[in-house]
Amino acid sequence: MSRFFSEKYIDLEPYVPGELPKNKREIKLNTNENPYPPLQEVTDAVAEESRKLNLYSDPDSLELRRALADNLEVPEDHLIVTNGSDEILNFAFMAFCDDHIPAVFPDVTYGFYPVFAQINQLPYREIPLKDDLTIDINKFFQVAGTLFIANPNAPTGIALKKSEIEQILQNNTYNVVVVDEAYVDFGAESCLPLVEAYDNLLVTRTFSKSRSLAGARLGVGIAQPELIADLNAVRNSTNPYNVNRLTAAAGIACLKHDDYNMENCRKIIETRSWSERALKDLGFEMTTSRTNFLFARHPDISGDELYKRLKDRGILIRHFKGQRICDYNRITIGTPEQMEKLVEAIKEILEEKA
Amino acid sequence: MSRFFSEKYIDLEPYVPGELPKNKREIKLNTNENPYPPLQEVTDAVAEESRKLNLYSDPDSLELRRALADNLEVPEDHLIVTNGSDEILNFAFMAFCDDHIPAVFPDVTYGFYPVFAQINQLPYREIPLKDDLTIDINKFFQVAGTLFIANPNAPTGIALKKSEIEQILQNNTYNVVVVDEAYVDFGAESCLPLVEAYDNLLVTRTFSKSRSLAGARLGVGIAQPELIADLNAVRNSTNPYNVNRLTAAAGIACLKHDDYNMENCRKIIETRSWSERALKDLGFEMTTSRTNFLFARHPDISGDELYKRLKDRGILIRHFKGQRICDYNRITIGTPEQMEKLVEAIKEILEEKA
Repeated sequence: MSRFFSEKYIDLEPYVPGELPKNKREIKLNTNENPYPPLQEVTDAVAEESRKLNLYSDPDSLELRRALADNLEVPEDHLIVTNGSDEILNFAFMAFCDDHIPAVFPDVTYGFYPVFAQINQLPYREIPLKDDLTIDINKFFQVAGTLFIANPNAPTGIALKKSEIEQILQNNTYNVVVVDEAYVDFGAESCLPLVEAYDNLLVTRTFSKSRSLAGARLGVGIAQPELIADLNAVRNSTNPYNVNRLTAAAGIACLKHDDYNMENCRKIIETRSWSERALKDLGFEMTTSRTNFLFARHPDISGDELYKRLKDRGILIRHFKGQRICDYNRITIGTPEQMEKLVEAIKEILEEKA
Repeated sequence: MSRFFSEKYIDLEPYVPGELPKNKREIKLNTNENPYPPLQEVTDAVAEESRKLNLYSDPDSLELRRALADNLEVPEDHLIVTNGSDEILNFAFMAFCDDHIPAVFPDVTYGFYPVFAQINQLPYREIPLKDDLTIDINKFFQVAGTLFIANPNAPTGIALKKSEIEQILQNNTYNVVVVDEAYVDFGAESCLPLVEAYDNLLVTRTFSKSRSLAGARLGVGIAQPELIADLNAVRNSTNPYNVNRLTAAAGIACLKHDDYNMENCRKIIETRSWSERALKDLGFEMTTSRTNFLFARHPDISGDELYKRLKDRGILIRHFKGQRICDYNRITIGTPEQMEKLVEAIKEILEEKA
């Protein structure tokens, strides 16, 4: 920290992204990436677009929003696109929270929410999950703040039903409810059909998980046009050209061949089922995942120890230090081959301990 | 604006980017883009990188920072890269300004500075330029705030010498001085060599102008490691994966063939000289440009009228409404052919008026 850093950030604790592998032979199951690379059509599209890189991108991202409108079956004016979904989340914290409107979210959820509150100097309140790490929706009624709910939740993987989200919406008519659907394509119910009925609903999506574009950074916000206008006011006061040409081209090409993505999701769900059974056989307890990861603990080995011993064997998973979840590890669903290697390694580690 | 938009933004006036052409035959001289497209090597690099888009980018952008370190001859730890230079500027407003440290900048400069202050709810102060639109450096001593100086300045195009920037630094030892060198490669003197001597200096650069990558969004900050650490704390609390894989690959490939970019800058400077003479012959007054644009006014036609009449003829230039500069237009230097068409069109417009 320099002598010039504003004292308003004295307690700031930045988000810590998942570590990168030290060498290429490592198996990376720590940032919920999709194991299947994008299609050749995506490569062709970005190569073609690169010839126009001397020109700015369209600040309204019209062509990309049109492709998304088709794909999600919502009107264009219900959409905003961002440099990853972290950016749309940050814009929502900026637009819909202030000294009088705190951010409100579960005590166990995406670890970036408290950081967004801190960087924007916003008050925030955490509502505890139940002991089994599920959400008691009654505790999320009349929160008198802007509500952020990851659905499915991270890192628990547990999903609420659309009807439960709707009850939360009906009981928060004076505040915005942001539903972060980063993982929704892996078996949860989306609340997109509720957007037309609720002017306080903002749904966020990402191309990082189900669309194999984590490295392109593409996030989406879906809401009624008035909320979208607020978010665009923030975007245009921050970075009007926030989505670059190459990412837009990759996104459009990716949506054109969305069957491929949906087939990959199906494969990942299948691999998840296999992995779940294999880990259960080894004595793990897990939450019910509707995502591309498992959240697992074992009675005989601490979360931290398992994380470290797998890392020694070249397998990266994600361990969080939070008090309620430090027994667990979050394990991304990779390819069947990667998951077999993971299970084999865990088996050996447990045998060594026994 | 929705009923949910935070009242803190009630007076927010977002930045307005230059308009896009309505049809492809228009000549676009309104956003200071480089008329020369990137090399095939950039296309090849982004195509290759696109195969790994399912994986997140390196949040530290190490490979890109190494390429930049070589190019700029500064150590890697003096560098931060961002999603366009608007992002590094926004981070500087966030990190180095607060209720007690206002942002300070000239009254005529990059129009985004007051917007960054507003979106971050920061006090700011504008220091008037002299009547001839040059900077009186004495007025920028001991500003008791964080100083933002575009050098060359926008939209005037006028540059300070490195020795003048150094005087400003010597007389602002208690605050950060941000020198925005977006246009420096078109004939101005960079103050990069001052970074080692001044711990309060942050230089910002962009790949949008001299490197033909406006559509890729790539900005750079150069400073001593302590300032860079502050900026990274803000970045990691906002969007740790802010630079995507494709943009990083484009940037690296672009720097590998930097002779091409420098040759394009030389061509643009040559076209600028030709355009300057041609416009002077038509009766225009201009500031001395060290950028890829001209800032010009004519005694017989208002800035607004010239802008509109050129637009009717399919040529876009940029007109600003600010009181001190509304007589002028900012005209990007395009290819020689584009500038000949511009001069021809202006000649006709002036003849019609006569």
